Amino acid sequence: MRSAMAAMGIDAAIITCNVNLIYTCGQVISGYLYLPVKGESILFVKRPNDITGDNLYFIRKPEQIADLLLQNGVDIPGKLMIEGDELTYQDYLRLEACFPDSEIMPCGTKVIQKVRTIKSDYEQEIFRKSGLAHTRAYNQIPQLYRPGMTDIDFSIEIEHVMRNEGMLGNIRIFGQSMEIFMGSILTADNAAKSSPYDFALGGGGTDPSLPVGANGSLLKEGHSVMVDIGGNFFGYMCDMSRVFSIGKLPDEAYVAHQACLDVQEAFKKYAVPGVVCEDLYEMAKDIIAGSGFADYFMGVGQKAGFIGHGIGLELNEQPIFAPRVRLALEKGMTFALEPKIVLPGIGPVGIENSWIVNADGIEQITLCREDIVDLM
Amino acid sequence: MRSAMAAMGIDAAIITCNVNLIYTCGQVISGYLYLPVKGESILFVKRPNDITGDNLYFIRKPEQIADLLLQNGVDIPGKLMIEGDELTYQDYLRLEACFPDSEIMPCGTKVIQKVRTIKSDYEQEIFRKSGLAHTRAYNQIPQLYRPGMTDIDFSIEIEHVMRNEGMLGNIRIFGQSMEIFMGSILTADNAAKSSPYDFALGGGGTDPSLPVGANGSLLKEGHSVMVDIGGNFFGYMCDMSRVFSIGKLPDEAYVAHQACLDVQEAFKKYAVPGVVCEDLYEMAKDIIAGSGFADYFMGVGQKAGFIGHGIGLELNEQPIFAPRVRLALEKGMTFALEPKIVLPGIGPVGIENSWIVNADGIEQITLCREDIVDLM
Repeated sequence: MRSAMAAMGIDAAIITCNVNLIYTCGQVISGYLYLPVKGESILFVKRPNDITGDNLYFIRKPEQIADLLLQNGVDIPGKLMIEGDELTYQDYLRLEACFPDSEIMPCGTKVIQKVRTIKSDYEQEIFRKSGLAHTRAYNQIPQLYRPGMTDIDFSIEIEHVMRNEGMLGNIRIFGQSMEIFMGSILTADNAAKSSPYDFALGGGGTDPSLPVGANGSLLKEGHSVMVDIGGNFFGYMCDMSRVFSIGKLPDEAYVAHQACLDVQEAFKKYAVPGVVCEDLYEMAKDIIAGSGFADYFMGVGQKAGFIGHGIGLELNEQPIFAPRVRLALEKGMTFALEPKIVLPGIGPVGIENSWIVNADGIEQITLCREDIVDLM
Repeated sequence: MRSAMAAMGIDAAIITCNVNLIYTCGQVISGYLYLPVKGESILFVKRPNDITGDNLYFIRKPEQIADLLLQNGVDIPGKLMIEGDELTYQDYLRLEACFPDSEIMPCGTKVIQKVRTIKSDYEQEIFRKSGLAHTRAYNQIPQLYRPGMTDIDFSIEIEHVMRNEGMLGNIRIFGQSMEIFMGSILTADNAAKSSPYDFALGGGGTDPSLPVGANGSLLKEGHSVMVDIGGNFFGYMCDMSRVFSIGKLPDEAYVAHQACLDVQEAFKKYAVPGVVCEDLYEMAKDIIAGSGFADYFMGVGQKAGFIGHGIGLELNEQPIFAPRVRLALEKGMTFALEPKIVLPGIGPVGIENSWIVNADGIEQITLCREDIVDLM
């Protein structure tokens, strides 16, 4: 992060949003990290009041920061970067006013998000651990089904297993308009329902205050059900979807499902450092077009504009596999790939796994069986 | 809301944050509500793409709004209010730039929050329904305990019951630094642990990315356990805490618990429209001081600065019962009152219920038994 700042001529950053504090300090605090390009960082803490360490000052309000810097012989930064895509307008103005002699740069969010895209070995180990916990939970799903369940009933039992395997419960997503509970369970035509949120698939939800995911549909013979519950076990988001069926599905469901698996196989073969996201997206579209399911790929009435997304401390990071994304894969990136097809009258099929980009290709960290599992 | 805007000389508002869209439109959309002081509102929708109705336009970006207003014969507003305490800095600037000829007022959040403080009869009915669902779930808690459980195990079973009773799962809280999963379960000395979040009590949590609530403590004989799981059944937050014990607690626990119930009794007697929040807060402090538990009231090392808070579409609305809050109660306000005492070596005691302010006093909407229930 310091080298990114140095390249932009930025003297210091103030970090105060939870997700970026986890990244830089290893934990959520209520306060501010002062991160200079050179010299030691200083933590200004409002809460908790029992935190200990060096270079730490307790404050009541951000207006105290500049004075404390001066008292410690730290020059007021010329160019100061703050989190312009995360701070509210009023919080931004307040922080800006604390440094009247600095040039305030709103690019903090973008700079730190770019740095967060490449995961360290330490972060990759956390991902692998998350993938294993997520896998342990998903392996129990077939035993949770009971005839007569709704999608909500099924979701509640899966949430329960996820929590027992250590899922923290909360899902962090960039962008204040994005909301979801632990994830979504979609069956039959609810998978085709448009949503206000920019997830891969929608679903109507059960209440207009959270219109996404399961809508109370009975799980019925001849329908598929897709489980897409997020895996936040240690602060980092892991993502996985699997498809189940109530009895045997029409043949086209298995063909469409295989087309999605073919997309994944192509990624295994071609997704290596240096390959451009858009090219992988186009490759996937071509595979699906060849299978004849293009009209049902990534939704029906309202289609997702992407087939995969970076994951990390938030569910929606870089890289994004979508049109016009010229970003190239790099070693240390982590992403979820989720080619999905929604079949009218049947429901959703497809696959989602989480991956780490290594020097020689991509490594799968969510490891459950990938065929459509019959629950009946 | 229109009369609040008119009083401030504001010509129109643009509402785009989810919680305020639920309030004004009855549902989450991705888009913008244009709300003029006079004339009909217009909804500009990005997603979902299947929404129908009058005065509705589909857009891809906010830059289209002004042109569409002009095409519909709507004058560009002189003073335009937007949500300055909720929009990010960059989103605010973008929306501001769409109306170069308007004076942009950042007070949107504060104006709508003030209006949201007084709940309509319709909203009050939703609260009563939520209170009953919350009560049904909490009544099942004693049957969920098994010897050898940790606080997390117990929490997971309570979450499961809450979901089965219809809890949507998500908890909306104003302020981007506030986070919690469904609520908190606090036992023994974990209840005294400071947290970065501004809840009534803290708790260490199980991971530094979410340092609040249950921390994996075994539920042990002689300790209390407080259940404070939020009740979002229909978009509106209902709040309730109850205390359980593993076996009999030391006598002081029951005395301290009764002191908190005494605070609640005093509210039942004195909390009527016209009474000032700070005065009720001071009354509560006096009752607790008289009981001898002042040092343990609302936490130990880090104390909450309030004993109750408004509830609604968000968990932390007006009124707040805290020092220097000169707001007077009004008919239609809804709040949670949560006098709590943390006893070192024992754990938390106290009570939390949700209330509606009626013309003649306060009406309790969460209705479980209020004594300390022994789980053993």
